[in-house]
Amino acid sequence: MQEKPLIFITNDDGITAPGLRALIDVVRPVGRVVVIAPDKPQSGTSHAVTMHHPLRLNHINSEPGYDEYSCDGTPVDCVKLAYKIVLDRRPDLLISGINHGSNSSINIIYSGTMAAVFEGAMAGVPSIGFSLLQYKEDADFSGASAYADRIIRKVMSRKLPEGICLNVNIPDVPVSEIKGVRICRQAGGTWLEDFDIRKDPKGRDYYWLKGIFARIGDGEDTDEHALEHNFVSIVPVNFDFTDYPAIEELKRWDFSS
Amino acid sequence: MQEKPLIFITNDDGITAPGLRALIDVVRPVGRVVVIAPDKPQSGTSHAVTMHHPLRLNHINSEPGYDEYSCDGTPVDCVKLAYKIVLDRRPDLLISGINHGSNSSINIIYSGTMAAVFEGAMAGVPSIGFSLLQYKEDADFSGASAYADRIIRKVMSRKLPEGICLNVNIPDVPVSEIKGVRICRQAGGTWLEDFDIRKDPKGRDYYWLKGIFARIGDGEDTDEHALEHNFVSIVPVNFDFTDYPAIEELKRWDFSS
Repeated sequence: MQEKPLIFITNDDGITAPGLRALIDVVRPVGRVVVIAPDKPQSGTSHAVTMHHPLRLNHINSEPGYDEYSCDGTPVDCVKLAYKIVLDRRPDLLISGINHGSNSSINIIYSGTMAAVFEGAMAGVPSIGFSLLQYKEDADFSGASAYADRIIRKVMSRKLPEGICLNVNIPDVPVSEIKGVRICRQAGGTWLEDFDIRKDPKGRDYYWLKGIFARIGDGEDTDEHALEHNFVSIVPVNFDFTDYPAIEELKRWDFSS
Repeated sequence: MQEKPLIFITNDDGITAPGLRALIDVVRPVGRVVVIAPDKPQSGTSHAVTMHHPLRLNHINSEPGYDEYSCDGTPVDCVKLAYKIVLDRRPDLLISGINHGSNSSINIIYSGTMAAVFEGAMAGVPSIGFSLLQYKEDADFSGASAYADRIIRKVMSRKLPEGICLNVNIPDVPVSEIKGVRICRQAGGTWLEDFDIRKDPKGRDYYWLKGIFARIGDGEDTDEHALEHNFVSIVPVNFDFTDYPAIEELKRWDFSS
């Protein structure tokens, strides 16, 4: 009998998030599953890694073919602990999410969900992040789960190109209204942000970040465009941030003085 | 009389870091300078942004043409506070560092120094991160300062290509031994990591991250190669993480079931 694939799961919304439970349910039937997730919400932590203090790992649940841990670090810490402490070998697949809220466009850069995916891919493990365009705790994950299942099976039967991981975003509509999957580029975008300026009981200012996302440009090949038209967007991403065309431009500059 | 350029400075080693002081000294003669830096070390925080609690800003120093603040958030929080609360207009230049330690190769993904640079560039501000290949508190920043000065003057006199920011790393040798500047691509690399497993007074395990960096591949066009040969490396980077060749590959996959 062939050994079941080893699937590692993490997220950035924390161990109690319904989106994490939805993703666990997708893969438990097909794999040996190990979960390590942050013990509290870690959204917006990006690729932060804990170096200045040590980490705790709490073994919460153990059943045949299934283990679940929480950790007091970031999503990237969870991946590092998985690879070095918990798993007896590299997993066959790393999945992260299902995130409560979009990681399309430039949101990828802030995302703890996608940071875990980068960290997985940097070790050569096929890695996918899933995000639903709905922040609510009681979001309906059925459409996201159906497409996560489909995409995971596809990735496990074919091979991802080397150095590539996937950023998958799912529109917040019933599964029957999802029109399919589109392979996209990352849309341009920005956060039109501001800070609430408030006063503490001693009259001193404090600042609380708020903002709304604004898309820049309107290419039909972007993730934002696909999501607006009720398609699941898949953006293949890599962790070589070099801008190759700019190398040629900068080589013409004279840095000798 | 022409107004002096407005230069914003941040870092991830915190407001007291000697590397930050070195960078301030480089630009104070030429610009109106505003510094906002974290009130404690924030290295390894990557692009983390503070959303779950509010931020404090502390105005430490104000002189003609110079203001300095500390903030209890991350480097990216410092940039957002600069743009929205402190500065009366977008700066002409954002510089981050001088980091105590390398941000070459894949270290860029973990770096708070470079996250601030991405955040600056995402708002269209010419942005540069500087890092010295020496972690020590009493590192010699004279070579790094000399080349930071040269590179900053060049960027301010020419225009950076749109959407591009610079990741500058400086070898830890006396300035007389630096051979010049090379425009490079980001080297492949990985952290050969492990955790120290220790026991607390109650006999429970805790885990402390340790590791050494290992370069992957040996291209002569990489930042790692340049630094090993005592050149300053400049990698032009952007924040579109899409892998364009992989789009074509994945479009051939059938996601219809």
